[in-house]
Amino acid sequence: MPKRKVEKHAGHLVVIGGAEDREGECRILREFVRLAGGRRARIAIISVASDVPKELDGLYEQAFRRLGAREVHALDVTTRGDANGEEAVLSMGWATGVFFTGGSQLRITRLVGGTRLDTALHRRHEEGLVIAGTSAGAAMMSSVMIVGSSPTMTLRAGVVELGSGLGFLPGVLIDQHFEQRGRLRRLLAAIAQHPHELGLGIDEDTAVVVRGHTFEVTGSGSVTVIDAGGLTHTNLGEVERHELLAVCGVRIHVLPAGYKFDLQNRVPLLEGK
Amino acid sequence: MPKRKVEKHAGHLVVIGGAEDREGECRILREFVRLAGGRRARIAIISVASDVPKELDGLYEQAFRRLGAREVHALDVTTRGDANGEEAVLSMGWATGVFFTGGSQLRITRLVGGTRLDTALHRRHEEGLVIAGTSAGAAMMSSVMIVGSSPTMTLRAGVVELGSGLGFLPGVLIDQHFEQRGRLRRLLAAIAQHPHELGLGIDEDTAVVVRGHTFEVTGSGSVTVIDAGGLTHTNLGEVERHELLAVCGVRIHVLPAGYKFDLQNRVPLLEGK
Repeated sequence: MPKRKVEKHAGHLVVIGGAEDREGECRILREFVRLAGGRRARIAIISVASDVPKELDGLYEQAFRRLGAREVHALDVTTRGDANGEEAVLSMGWATGVFFTGGSQLRITRLVGGTRLDTALHRRHEEGLVIAGTSAGAAMMSSVMIVGSSPTMTLRAGVVELGSGLGFLPGVLIDQHFEQRGRLRRLLAAIAQHPHELGLGIDEDTAVVVRGHTFEVTGSGSVTVIDAGGLTHTNLGEVERHELLAVCGVRIHVLPAGYKFDLQNRVPLLEGK
Repeated sequence: MPKRKVEKHAGHLVVIGGAEDREGECRILREFVRLAGGRRARIAIISVASDVPKELDGLYEQAFRRLGAREVHALDVTTRGDANGEEAVLSMGWATGVFFTGGSQLRITRLVGGTRLDTALHRRHEEGLVIAGTSAGAAMMSSVMIVGSSPTMTLRAGVVELGSGLGFLPGVLIDQHFEQRGRLRRLLAAIAQHPHELGLGIDEDTAVVVRGHTFEVTGSGSVTVIDAGGLTHTNLGEVERHELLAVCGVRIHVLPAGYKFDLQNRVPLLEGK
């Protein structure tokens, strides 16, 4: 738990909370390029989440070239047909790193879920392909994914809409723009429904870099881990939609850059801290 | 723990997260008047926290009269001399309930702390006087009190300013307007410094009604309890001011109206839930 089958040579995942620095020091994007091979990196950009894919493609192409990637290529996927096409699949054979932009996480899963591109991504990831995603591209990493929520300040039943992600990182539930959009209660509501998942609330310009069962935090903000393993009580299931939720006995950890976490045993790794 | 000497006949405390309903159903203020004696209630309003005390006095006088209190009187305390004066002390003998308005919590402790009024409040509370406070009037209830914080979205060292409250409810650290102003990380930062205190984050139009070692939540929002008893790690004390804080192993409970909590044993009381 998380029930993740980790292949020996599986690549890193870089899960970014949105609004990462693309012009300054670029701590997170630089790390992604480094993991994907640095000067030998071949980066594929997948901007299916976005309404303005060309704009984002341009921005990220420029950033990754500036950070030293050898080749950068934006996938042209606007239909499920494209995601089942030869070009998309071949790109996955070519790439050492794939970057999912922000936008709507539902657009990603609707356009890519179950396609040949999806299959190629998983197969290549097991062989070492590094996969990064920011904002919507982060949300879709898990198996259970937050799709959206009614705008509400309080913890209420039925306000968080959940769906299926692409499942690169099962066992977690990711929320992004976490502190900036005050999403603790949204993630708590989701976790109360799925206490077996570990909640990861990722701030803007902040990422978790996952390898195997461990992640390390990088970037300028923090990652809030919500562990409902010790949940002693919730009234979820007893209250009506939009009534206030009670959630008792949840553990949280707030981790800035440099901190590591063991996803399997649900504990921060504190050696040297 | 909390180290509260609870006298057998000590009155209730009504600790309100600010912006309580004063014109509609008035769930919280109605409950305060009821606890203070209902139709026999004699309410003293203390608005020393505010820059516009007369305005607040008028508002609350009207509200408490409408809710059926027999007599309502606003204390005229603008100096420490007033707080040491005969009139203030006599008012405490007369009142069955005291209500502290919002404003600045430091104004309360600076004007009232250690005065004869302060002593009379504590003595009379032990004999049954009900004490309520909203916003700043809630913050000052504890022994360690949040005075203010730099506006920051992230959990950083040294951004929360702590001071001494009037200590009606030792063993806790109260933050108000909790969800509305996104103060989880502010309260976490305070609790990381004082893990022996229990953090109470009270939403607007929400209150905890304390009797002895137990409180019950009332109002339209929730109370977030932060328990750092199981804190496994923090980098506080190692990092510089304004660096990001790590806080590991904190337990939280989010409790809507009707939920009770045992402050001494740090557990929600879930009978019948």
